[in-house]
Amino acid sequence: MKQILHGHIVHAPKLGALEILENGYMLLENGKIAGIAGALPDDWKGCEIIDYSDRIIMQSFCDMHLHAPQYPMLGMGMDLPLLEWLNTYTFKTEARFADVDYAREIYRRLAKELIDNGTTRVCAFSSLHLESTLVLMEEFEKAGICGFVGKVNMDRNGSPELQENTEDSIRDTIKWLDACPKDAHIQPILTPRFTPSCTNELMAALGKLAKERGLYVQSHLSENTSEIEWVRSLHPDCPQYWESYDKYGLFNSHTVMAHCVHSDERERKAIKDHNVVVAHCPDSNINLISGVAPIRQMLNEGIWVTLGSDIAGGAILPMMGVIAEAIRSSKIRRIHSNWTVDFLTVAEGYYLGTTSGAHYFGAGDGFANGDPLHAIVIDDRHYVDTHRLSIRDRFERAIYRAKTDDICAVYSAGRKVK
Amino acid sequence: MKQILHGHIVHAPKLGALEILENGYMLLENGKIAGIAGALPDDWKGCEIIDYSDRIIMQSFCDMHLHAPQYPMLGMGMDLPLLEWLNTYTFKTEARFADVDYAREIYRRLAKELIDNGTTRVCAFSSLHLESTLVLMEEFEKAGICGFVGKVNMDRNGSPELQENTEDSIRDTIKWLDACPKDAHIQPILTPRFTPSCTNELMAALGKLAKERGLYVQSHLSENTSEIEWVRSLHPDCPQYWESYDKYGLFNSHTVMAHCVHSDERERKAIKDHNVVVAHCPDSNINLISGVAPIRQMLNEGIWVTLGSDIAGGAILPMMGVIAEAIRSSKIRRIHSNWTVDFLTVAEGYYLGTTSGAHYFGAGDGFANGDPLHAIVIDDRHYVDTHRLSIRDRFERAIYRAKTDDICAVYSAGRKVK
Repeated sequence: MKQILHGHIVHAPKLGALEILENGYMLLENGKIAGIAGALPDDWKGCEIIDYSDRIIMQSFCDMHLHAPQYPMLGMGMDLPLLEWLNTYTFKTEARFADVDYAREIYRRLAKELIDNGTTRVCAFSSLHLESTLVLMEEFEKAGICGFVGKVNMDRNGSPELQENTEDSIRDTIKWLDACPKDAHIQPILTPRFTPSCTNELMAALGKLAKERGLYVQSHLSENTSEIEWVRSLHPDCPQYWESYDKYGLFNSHTVMAHCVHSDERERKAIKDHNVVVAHCPDSNINLISGVAPIRQMLNEGIWVTLGSDIAGGAILPMMGVIAEAIRSSKIRRIHSNWTVDFLTVAEGYYLGTTSGAHYFGAGDGFANGDPLHAIVIDDRHYVDTHRLSIRDRFERAIYRAKTDDICAVYSAGRKVK
Repeated sequence: MKQILHGHIVHAPKLGALEILENGYMLLENGKIAGIAGALPDDWKGCEIIDYSDRIIMQSFCDMHLHAPQYPMLGMGMDLPLLEWLNTYTFKTEARFADVDYAREIYRRLAKELIDNGTTRVCAFSSLHLESTLVLMEEFEKAGICGFVGKVNMDRNGSPELQENTEDSIRDTIKWLDACPKDAHIQPILTPRFTPSCTNELMAALGKLAKERGLYVQSHLSENTSEIEWVRSLHPDCPQYWESYDKYGLFNSHTVMAHCVHSDERERKAIKDHNVVVAHCPDSNINLISGVAPIRQMLNEGIWVTLGSDIAGGAILPMMGVIAEAIRSSKIRRIHSNWTVDFLTVAEGYYLGTTSGAHYFGAGDGFANGDPLHAIVIDDRHYVDTHRLSIRDRFERAIYRAKTDDICAVYSAGRKVK
């Protein structure tokens, strides 16, 4: 089936490159991009045109780190640092997902809010609960979200209401993996919560599973200085935090590590050499007073950087807002380097929130030919524009103002989902 | 006329103190607060009750620094530092306000967006245009906004399309002052743009006007290091920036100075001793890479700190969002002080965005008896709440999520304006 979307087309094929085509045509065959053209090619004349005239068709977002069961506490507990926040708010909130009906209700709402804000691909943590994790995957699937969801493993240092024993954790993980539909848009990813939450035995079992089944892994790395100290005391044989994952085969190509705020040169080299993906979570890192990650440095070193909302350590769900916070964080690094380190431009921030994450899911650069369409359409015609703003300015306003209602359509894997 | 609002009542009478009354009653006489009570007093029984059951009645916001004519460029040009941004975007945008019809249309929309987001009191810059400034005051008045608006003075270092000569600037200022309605909720405030924009002759004339007519003054101070150098070269006789205002009688009690990012101990002492009000603009200071103001230090020193959106250097209009950014900025100061300086709690941020600004307009502490009501009502009942959140948590969520649509009612000077 051939379809054409007509409007202003904006995408970021490379870091810092923003391609803008005014009044262009996006050609689709069975939901896959067949080309972008300034004028309608002859062999496409007569095909269905979906008219987004004077609206902006741009790439949708990838949220590479979020905690789905923390959604009910979004925007709360922000006066507490990481480890206290975990114990006071987070573990209690996650424990409620033992109730599958509750999970269904919350996850349906979360999926809707993600799609409404143009997040079409995710790398998400569930809770430790097997059934609720399957519910989360179902609700994401139904809403049209693609990507990965992980049942959390945690067999130590949890709370009375939120902890597994090692045997249950391994058994439930295998049950869960076996229960995941093979052809779904949402696939499983192994998810040891973080080193302090997992015994060596559990880590070893997860490493074995990753290898046997060719699974990807997601976890947390070097978010907070106290956490780093804690890991050091738990793994005195590991000079650095990342090695507590690596020794169990959990620090591989396409492992997603959230935060990496305090990763020094040696750890960053390991991240790069192992082709590990950094999920930078700017809002969370400031809210929980963790620090400000050296993103420009990572990019200069060739590290694969993506963005995450990290709800609910992050209080901002729309990735447009997360991109703006990533830019702000990079400006803070600039200020504190005495104005020597470059900040992220809007085009760069947008690349990190779109293409860089999309690569994880096998997509090409920007709106690449052959890729299933992941896009949002911005309708900003309600703003006064007597002086004809450039599409570049309107794009930037969409990112900074981050208005959910301005997103009038969302496409995910070629399907219209909003 | 007696009226009663019934709901959860939240206010911040002192820095760091958040008073919460569940299922309380706000007693109003002719729009003025006559008391807050946990149970309805006998002599109030039978009066009209406006039922906000299970909604949160809380203080509305004061935006102590915003540039009304920059509203059309909100969220744009964020890749540029202050002085370039002024020349590329700002001056061009402000110049359009020579057109009164354009001003009417833009200012009507701005006023609506402010009220919709619960900003009921402002200290706002207009452009240099006399007529459009009166239009801004009218539109704010109509929308129910209270506070101060200033016709900008700038007779040097503007742009070809945006600059006055000295004589016109003084003459138009007097004409404007004489044209302002005496009994309006919006009153005039003298507004030299900033030292580099005003000749000594103009500054002297404004100082004279301030004294003769007992007018307040607003301007910018120590926002950016290049700007500070520039002021030094323009006023070699002034050891510090603030003295370039003080020598013309423009650094007085109730002068509002935006930013003060780089004010050192001596300048901060002058701010304190002169009872000058700091309008902290956290989002703008990061967007324009100016720096991160030492707000905790200022508070410890007893300086009067308030908050401003500084649109459009700031890209966030809702003061809920500005409060969250102020908290984030304070956490950045904490990170960069090696976790020694305290961050702003949510209660403290809220105080700065409400009571501290309200004092400027003569209000008391929090919901003080005798004050005309300035309040918003948060309806957050659409969120799932199967586990009965505390009012404190719901209040915090309202600040962090900053959803315009969650504000179901706004009261300004005792009148319901949304």
